[in-house]
Amino acid sequence: MKERLTKLREAMRKAGIDCYVIPTSDFHNSEYVSEFFCVRKYFSGFTGSAGTLVVWAEAAVLFTDGRYFLQAAAQLTGSGITLMKMGEPGVPKLTEYLEHELQDGQTIGFDGRVVTASDGMEYETIAQKKGGHVIWNLDLAEAIWTDRPAFPATKVFVLKECYSGETTAEKLARLREKMEQENADVHILTTLDDIAWLFNLRADDVECCPLLLSYAVITAKEAYLFANERAFSAEEKTYLSENGICLKDYDSFYTYITAYCGAHADARILLCEKRMNYRLKKEIGDQVNIVDRPNPTTLMKAVKNPIEQENLRKAHLMDAVAVTKFMYWLKTNVGKVPMTEISVADELEQLRRENPSFIEPSFHTISAYGANGAIVHYSADPDSCADIVAKGMLMVDSGGHYYEGTTDITRTFVLGDITDRMKQDFTLVVRAMLRLKDTRFLHGCTGANLDLAAREVFWEKGLDYKHGTGHGVGYLLNVHEGPNSFRYKVSDMSEKWVFEEGMVTTDEPGIYIEGSHGVRIENELLCRKGEENEYGQFMYFENLTFVPIDLDGVDPFAMEQKEIDSLNRYHQAVYEKLLPYFAGEELAWLREATRTISRE
Amino acid sequence: MKERLTKLREAMRKAGIDCYVIPTSDFHNSEYVSEFFCVRKYFSGFTGSAGTLVVWAEAAVLFTDGRYFLQAAAQLTGSGITLMKMGEPGVPKLTEYLEHELQDGQTIGFDGRVVTASDGMEYETIAQKKGGHVIWNLDLAEAIWTDRPAFPATKVFVLKECYSGETTAEKLARLREKMEQENADVHILTTLDDIAWLFNLRADDVECCPLLLSYAVITAKEAYLFANERAFSAEEKTYLSENGICLKDYDSFYTYITAYCGAHADARILLCEKRMNYRLKKEIGDQVNIVDRPNPTTLMKAVKNPIEQENLRKAHLMDAVAVTKFMYWLKTNVGKVPMTEISVADELEQLRRENPSFIEPSFHTISAYGANGAIVHYSADPDSCADIVAKGMLMVDSGGHYYEGTTDITRTFVLGDITDRMKQDFTLVVRAMLRLKDTRFLHGCTGANLDLAAREVFWEKGLDYKHGTGHGVGYLLNVHEGPNSFRYKVSDMSEKWVFEEGMVTTDEPGIYIEGSHGVRIENELLCRKGEENEYGQFMYFENLTFVPIDLDGVDPFAMEQKEIDSLNRYHQAVYEKLLPYFAGEELAWLREATRTISRE
Repeated sequence: MKERLTKLREAMRKAGIDCYVIPTSDFHNSEYVSEFFCVRKYFSGFTGSAGTLVVWAEAAVLFTDGRYFLQAAAQLTGSGITLMKMGEPGVPKLTEYLEHELQDGQTIGFDGRVVTASDGMEYETIAQKKGGHVIWNLDLAEAIWTDRPAFPATKVFVLKECYSGETTAEKLARLREKMEQENADVHILTTLDDIAWLFNLRADDVECCPLLLSYAVITAKEAYLFANERAFSAEEKTYLSENGICLKDYDSFYTYITAYCGAHADARILLCEKRMNYRLKKEIGDQVNIVDRPNPTTLMKAVKNPIEQENLRKAHLMDAVAVTKFMYWLKTNVGKVPMTEISVADELEQLRRENPSFIEPSFHTISAYGANGAIVHYSADPDSCADIVAKGMLMVDSGGHYYEGTTDITRTFVLGDITDRMKQDFTLVVRAMLRLKDTRFLHGCTGANLDLAAREVFWEKGLDYKHGTGHGVGYLLNVHEGPNSFRYKVSDMSEKWVFEEGMVTTDEPGIYIEGSHGVRIENELLCRKGEENEYGQFMYFENLTFVPIDLDGVDPFAMEQKEIDSLNRYHQAVYEKLLPYFAGEELAWLREATRTISRE
Repeated sequence: MKERLTKLREAMRKAGIDCYVIPTSDFHNSEYVSEFFCVRKYFSGFTGSAGTLVVWAEAAVLFTDGRYFLQAAAQLTGSGITLMKMGEPGVPKLTEYLEHELQDGQTIGFDGRVVTASDGMEYETIAQKKGGHVIWNLDLAEAIWTDRPAFPATKVFVLKECYSGETTAEKLARLREKMEQENADVHILTTLDDIAWLFNLRADDVECCPLLLSYAVITAKEAYLFANERAFSAEEKTYLSENGICLKDYDSFYTYITAYCGAHADARILLCEKRMNYRLKKEIGDQVNIVDRPNPTTLMKAVKNPIEQENLRKAHLMDAVAVTKFMYWLKTNVGKVPMTEISVADELEQLRRENPSFIEPSFHTISAYGANGAIVHYSADPDSCADIVAKGMLMVDSGGHYYEGTTDITRTFVLGDITDRMKQDFTLVVRAMLRLKDTRFLHGCTGANLDLAAREVFWEKGLDYKHGTGHGVGYLLNVHEGPNSFRYKVSDMSEKWVFEEGMVTTDEPGIYIEGSHGVRIENELLCRKGEENEYGQFMYFENLTFVPIDLDGVDPFAMEQKEIDSLNRYHQAVYEKLLPYFAGEELAWLREATRTISRE
C-alpha cells in the first residue's frame, strides 16, 4: 500500500498536483460501483463502501462515516493514512479540511468524472481562494494500477415489452413531451438506471445492478447512446437502429458534448445539476442555457405501469416461495447441521436460483446473527462470520433481480430461546411494519407525511431506528430508487413529490440493541388508488411480499387488536398464495407458521 | 355603490389609470384589518373577509373564494360588478385575467402599500408586456370616501415583564445577534405582531388583535418605531426612550427608507421579502443588498419563554372556567329559555369578561347551530341567525386575549337528540384530537410529519376535513401565528422549521356534513421536551385547554381502549383543575360531565 502511495505521489509531482482527492464513485454518481472504479480502495486498503482519500506529498487522510470507524482504523494500520471520523466532534468537513490545509498557490487534483459538479465547484473555490487552481482531467490511477480490473462491458440485452410494459419509442415520446414543456433542445442523461429504463436495456456492469455503463443524449429527433460497442450483439444493434437510437463510443461522450455546446451556443439543455459530474459541467461550459430539473425519467420509472405491476406480483411470489422454503429449512435444521451467516445466505441464494426467472441478487445479502443484527449495515466476512446455533435471532435482508422485477425483503428468524426484551422488540417491529402497510391516505401525501404510521409505536416508547422506514425499488434496476421513500426528515434538497399509483416502496422498520440483538422486518408496498369521493382521491398500499413473519417472536399481548387482525389476515394471504408450492411436511409447517394468533 | 364607482372611475381617469386593483389588506399584510382599510368593501358592497376588486372604465369584477360565492353573489346584485369565482373551472386567476383584459399601453393602478411586493411585481410585468406601466402611489379612496373611519390610533400600553417574560433590551440583543450572523446592517420589520412582540407594546388598532399600526427599523445601535405619537402617553414615551427606541411618525416611514437607502448604497438590509409590500420594495430600490430571510422574530415569538408558558397555563384555566360555566348554562337552559347563535356567543363573552384579566375576544366567535356547523367559516348574522332549541348540536369556536396570553378553543355541544351518524362523527373528531394531543415524537419533526396522528382515523374511513389540523397561537397577539402548524400539505414557499419547546399550536380536527351538522373539537398544545436518550431528544405536547368534551356525543364502542383511557385521563384533569371554581349544582354537573366512561 505504501508503495502505491509513493507512486501516486510521484505522479502527482509530475502533474503539478499538491493534493489529490479520491472519492468512492464511478462516472455516473452510482450508489454501487464496479471493481474498476475502486481507486480509493486500491490506494488506501480500506474496503468500506464509503470514504474519500486525500493524498498530499507528505501526508494522507481518509474521511469515512460512523459505520466504518472500526473497520477503517484496522485496515489503515501501518499505511501512514490518518483516519478522519466524519461527524465526530472536532473533525472538520472535507471542504473545511481542504481549506485549512491547502497552502498558498497549491493545486487540488481529481478525476472530474468521479466528483459531483457541486463538490468540484467547492474544491475550485477553495483552490482559487489560495491563489491556486484545480486539475480535474487526470485519473492518476491509470498508469499506476497495472493489474486494474478491465473496464466493465458485460453483454447487453433488451428487456422485452412483456416485461417492460412500454416500448422505448413510447418512453422517448413521453420524455420529448416533457422536453418540449421545458422548451429544451436537448436532454443529457448520465444516471445509469434512467438510461437503462429509457432504452429498455439491461446488462451486468455493476455487481447486483443490471446496468450498462453509458451516457445518453436526446434531442427532439435524435437519441444517442454512448456505450461500449463490444457489449452489443447484432440483435441488440438492430434493436437500437429500429428505435432510432444511435450508438456511439462510451469514451466519445465528453468530446461530443464539447462539440455540441460549441456549435449550439443558444441551446437549452435539460439536465439535473445535482446528478451530474464536474467534468460534464466543465465540458458544457457557461455559454449554453441549463434547464436544471430532476430527470423526467426519475418519476416515469418510479411509477410502475400495469404490466410491470403484474410482473412484480409474480416476481414477489417466486421470491416468497424461495424465502419461505429457506425459512422452513433454517427453522427445522438449525442446531442440527452446521451453519454460518454466510452459509445460510448461500443456501437462500441457491433456493432463489432454482427459479429460471432469477438473474442475480439485487444486493449483497445481510445475514446477521445475534449481536451482529444490531449493526445496521452489517456485512459478514468469510473469515470471521458467526456460527449459527439454535438460540437467539438471525436477521436476513436480501433480494433478487428477476425478469419480472426486483425484490427486497427482510425477515428476522427466531432460532431458539429469546429473552422477553427480544420478543417485545420483535413484536414492536411487526406492529410498525403492519401499521404503515395498512395506512390509507389522500393523494397529495409524501413519505414525510406517512413515516409516522410506522414510527409512532416506537416513539411512544422512547425508541427509534436511525434509518428511513423505506425506499423506492426499481424494476430490474437499482434496489434503491428515488424519489419515493418513507422518512420524516426531509432534506432541503429534496424535490416535492407525492405518492402516485404504481410506486413501489419498502416498509422496513427495525430495532438495534448494541451488543445484543437486532430485528428488522421488511415488506414491499405498491401504491394504489382507492376510493375517490368528495374529499379527494384516497390511496392505499397493496402488499407485494408474502413470507411468514416468525410467530415465535410475536407477543399478541403487546399488540392492539387491529394489529393482531392485520397480522392474521396477512398470514392467511401468505398461506393461500404459497399453498400451490408446498406439500407434505413443508405444507404442514407452513400452515403452522401462518396460524391465527389471539390473546386467548 | 354605483355612485362610489362612478367617482372612483372619475379619479382613475384624472390619474391616468385604466385598471384599478383593490385587494383586502392593510399596509402590513395583516390577516385581519381595521375598518379604515376596508376600501374593497366600500366600493363593492361585498363584506366577506377575502376578495379583490378590479375596476375598469366600463367594467368591474370581484375575485373571491368558495367560502363567499353565495354571499358575494347576493351582495353584488345590481352593483354592475361581475363575480369571479376563484378555483371554479374556467375562471382565470387574477393575473391571467389582467393579462388577458389589459389593452396595449394601458396602466394598472393600485396603492402599493396594500399590495404584496410579489403581486405588485406581477402586475408590473403584465403592464410592461402591454407597453404600459403601473401607478402604485395613489390611494384613490382618500378623496372619495368622505366618511371613512379614522386611521386607528388606539392607546398603546407596555406589556409588563411579568407577562412578557423578556425585556425589550433582551429581545433586541437577540435580534441583533441574528443580524450580525447574517452580516446585516439594518433590519426592516413591517409585520405588526413581530413589532408588538419585539417592543413589548400592545394596543387595539385592529379588532380582536391587540396591535399597533407601526413599522420598525433596527440597526446595530438604533431602533426606530414608526407609529402614531398620539397613541403614546408620557409613560409609554419614557419606556421607549429608556429602551433606546426612537419614536417617529408613522407616515414618515417610506421617506425614511428612501433616504436611508440613498445614503447607504452598500447597506445589507435583512428583511422577509414575502411579507413586504410593493411600495417598500420600490422605496428600497435596487441599489442596496437585500438579505431575504424569515424575520428572526417569527421563530423567537413562536417559542414562548418559561414565564409566558406559566402565564398561558393561567390564561387557559381562566378561559376554561368561563367556557365550562357557559357549557353548564347552555346544557341546563337549552329548550327552557330563548337562545340564538348570537345570544349564546354574547353569553359566553359575558362570562369571559367577568375575569379582570380578560381584554377582548381573540377573534369573532363562530357560533354555528345544526346545519350551520357544516360551514367551516360560518359567521352568524344578527338578522338571520338560527334559534337554538333542545335538539342537535351547537359548535362554538371562540377565544380570548388575556394579559396572561391568548386562547382559542372549540367545543361542540349536544343539545338534545342526535342521530347515530352525528354521534359517530362526534366520536371520530374526539379520537383524532386526542391522538394528536398524545403524540410523542423526536425533535426534528414538523407539522407535516405529525398531521397524520389526527387525520389517520379519518382517512381509514374515507373521510377528511379540508383545513389544517392546527395553527400556532400568539401571546396576546394574533390568534393565528406562524411558523408552526399541523398540516400535511406543505407549500413550496414554507420555510423549514421544526417543533421547538415552547411552541403553542391548536389541535382542531373537524367534520362537516353539508346540510346536516358539523363537529369540531379544539384544544391548544404546548410543545415540551421529554426524555433525551440515545435516539435523541423526545418531545411531547402539554395540554393547555381544560374544558369537558360533551360525553353526550361520545360512543365508547367506536373508540380504541387507549383513546377511552386518554379521554378519561383528560376529564379527570379537567375536574381537578376546575374544582376550585365550581360549587353546588354546578359542581355536581361538572362531576357528571367529566365522569369516567367505558365499554361496560
